[in-house]
Amino acid sequence: MYTVRVMSAAEQFHVDEVSPSYWRVTFDNGPVNLLDADTIDQLGVLVGRIENAPDLTVVVFRSDKPGYFMAHWDFLADNARVAAMQPGPTGLHPYVDNFVRLGRLPVATISEIRGRARGAGSEFVLATDIRFASEKAILGQFEVGVDAVPGGGPMARLGRLVGRGRALEILLGGDDVPAALAAEYGYVNRVIPDSEIESFTDAFARRIAAFDKVAVAGIKKLVDVATLPDDAEFAAGLQAYFATAGRPERRPFPLRVRRDRRARAGPRAGHRDRRGARSPRRR
Amino acid sequence: MYTVRVMSAAEQFHVDEVSPSYWRVTFDNGPVNLLDADTIDQLGVLVGRIENAPDLTVVVFRSDKPGYFMAHWDFLADNARVAAMQPGPTGLHPYVDNFVRLGRLPVATISEIRGRARGAGSEFVLATDIRFASEKAILGQFEVGVDAVPGGGPMARLGRLVGRGRALEILLGGDDVPAALAAEYGYVNRVIPDSEIESFTDAFARRIAAFDKVAVAGIKKLVDVATLPDDAEFAAGLQAYFATAGRPERRPFPLRVRRDRRARAGPRAGHRDRRGARSPRRR
Amino acid sequence: MYTVRVMSAAEQFHVDEVSPSYWRVTFDNGPVNLLDADTIDQLGVLVGRIENAPDLTVVVFRSDKPGYFMAHWDFLADNARVAAMQPGPTGLHPYVDNFVRLGRLPVATISEIRGRARGAGSEFVLATDIRFASEKAILGQFEVGVDAVPGGGPMARLGRLVGRGRALEILLGGDDVPAALAAEYGYVNRVIPDSEIESFTDAFARRIAAFDKVAVAGIKKLVDVATLPDDAEFAAGLQAYFATAGRPERRPFPLRVRRDRRARAGPRAGHRDRRGARSPRRR
Repeated sequence: MYTVRVMSAAEQFHVDEVSPSYWRVTFDNGPVNLLDADTIDQLGVLVGRIENAPDLTVVVFRSDKPGYFMAHWDFLADNARVAAMQPGPTGLHPYVDNFVRLGRLPVATISEIRGRARGAGSEFVLATDIRFASEKAILGQFEVGVDAVPGGGPMARLGRLVGRGRALEILLGGDDVPAALAAEYGYVNRVIPDSEIESFTDAFARRIAAFDKVAVAGIKKLVDVATLPDDAEFAAGLQAYFATAGRPERRPFPLRVRRDRRARAGPRAGHRDRRGARSPRRR
Repeated sequence: MYTVRVMSAAEQFHVDEVSPSYWRVTFDNGPVNLLDADTIDQLGVLVGRIENAPDLTVVVFRSDKPGYFMAHWDFLADNARVAAMQPGPTGLHPYVDNFVRLGRLPVATISEIRGRARGAGSEFVLATDIRFASEKAILGQFEVGVDAVPGGGPMARLGRLVGRGRALEILLGGDDVPAALAAEYGYVNRVIPDSEIESFTDAFARRIAAFDKVAVAGIKKLVDVATLPDDAEFAAGLQAYFATAGRPERRPFPLRVRRDRRARAGPRAGHRDRRGARSPRRR
Repeated sequence: MYTVRVMSAAEQFHVDEVSPSYWRVTFDNGPVNLLDADTIDQLGVLVGRIENAPDLTVVVFRSDKPGYFMAHWDFLADNARVAAMQPGPTGLHPYVDNFVRLGRLPVATISEIRGRARGAGSEFVLATDIRFASEKAILGQFEVGVDAVPGGGPMARLGRLVGRGRALEILLGGDDVPAALAAEYGYVNRVIPDSEIESFTDAFARRIAAFDKVAVAGIKKLVDVATLPDDAEFAAGLQAYFATAGRPERRPFPLRVRRDRRARAGPRAGHRDRRGARSPRRR
């Protein structure tokens, strides 16, 4: 079944090559757009394609699922498969390798966020260059609520993007961050009305698509020097995730969800999945 | 009298251990909450207690004095006693050592600011992780107005928190920063209406109090890497403070205030003390 | 003619020495305040004067041209003369050397922006400490639209000032940034109504003019440590500009404008000059 699953994995990133300089990528994985082991494999392939597209200057990432950009990591994903993955080109585990390479693409990357992007979904949009959000966007890093340090680099990225105080509020509070607050904090670039964001983002992307690739890549390279963390910070973040998420003395969250599902089944399990994290327990 | 003062120093930090994971600390030192030599000693002890509290995940700092969080450094404080203090665990003078260790606690620290936090008071809140302010909050670093470089690290912290332009406006203008502007600049996280800030902060703290300490400490450690200055910057800041505040060729501000008080006495001196800085002189 | 032009260059920076501690500098170069080779020479001289003014604590930069602070680099400027310029005191080309030294002055520098400051004009205001803008201000880095990497350091400065996401939006989008968005992003400190900005800036400057120079210089020096890029980043930026703007395989923009002017002449060429960049071409 493992092999079958890999071989037959449905394509999650639908690439619309609008022109050689402009690609539009729609993410599609279940009703709420979860990320899973297949996402890691497929994102690695996609990043490689983008790296090697000679005329590409801009890529927009979006979703067609009402209310969801990328909900979060699939707690029922095959974690053993993920743990066994070989390092990517940066020498880092592919989960983080994808995000590091995504950030360093010689291409402008834009997230058009019209729904939830929490946990791994937030880590994804933070790895892209520009985040446009509609009032329907909800971001957040709830990992602290499941006893884990987030693994995809938000300590490194949010700390530099929104400043220490707001990064710690987001990461230690673990709460949902609605679009307006996200814009106030700089977590997203700005809020564009949901009825306009598609045409706004498309016009912005077409603008960049008309620009010279050498200039686009040259600008990004120098902004990278000024703003990107060293790989070592990403490595430390993922290590902290594995160390905290996998602690035997704490009931791992995936197992908790699975057990809850077996016990309860039905719509509540799905509801819980959409929520992504249990309510904080009182001490 | 010196010894007596140290021995009998009233407790300035009232610690309410709401639970093993949540402490609420109310600062209390005179009608406007000045900081003085005793504050340094007692804060050092408090930070040590927090460092060693095994289950603690969140500490809220607050004040019960209407209009004041921590007004500023007491210009009548025993500066000789301060100058003679032995270095703290970081090797830095305790004034800065406290703030450095406060910033690195494996615990979320929150300032609930409902009044003035200027000078040393601003340096204190900048050393905590998260700053929630009500519309009654007023922040600022007025040291330039008394011919001094601030000693508690705001060049290092504000520069990274609000960006170079706004940090220089705050530090070189030396003016009061009202809550709304502080939030716009990122000096505080956000403004919460004064009638709601206590329950808001308490709910936020209880949320973190319910989280796992290993996750909280692990997240902070990596945000520290991304956002905290090196100790050398704090050492240079304090050195610049001592070099500028203690210049023999300039009438030191504490002496100025003391002399003014002797000359005038009465309520105006108290008023001046609350203002904290003389009006800028015209050249 | 070359020599004559250098010798007879009109003074572009009109310095009003309001007091020994406060200078007000009005930039004046043609109807839209273009920057050219003379600007580089004269700014170098002005920065040297400021460096050596013993009592100076604050300099305000402003313009009297309605709608323009500094429009942008003059595309008809003598680029051969610029390319042949000898390095300045930092060892960098004078164009960037000026901006680096401007940023490190032991004096508060304030840009009062009531019109366009794009391209080189934006690079100038980014090199000053504090940017106050009226609602008439328009900023931007349109270089990507003329196939170039900006040369005066905005990748290094904007990346640190407004964060990676917004810096990339500004630099890769190449679009005009109106005052309100600039303030929201932190590109300027804040927006002051156009009818009040002159008195606001003057009052703010007089405040700093009354402060002690040792304190002002000491504060700036430490904010510099926390916020300024290394010279190497500026060197790389200028190198990228020369590499991209001077590519023989792309029709250089100055030549394009010149040829267009010859072909069309008349008011449209002037209009185009004020626009600064061609519309992005579709691919």
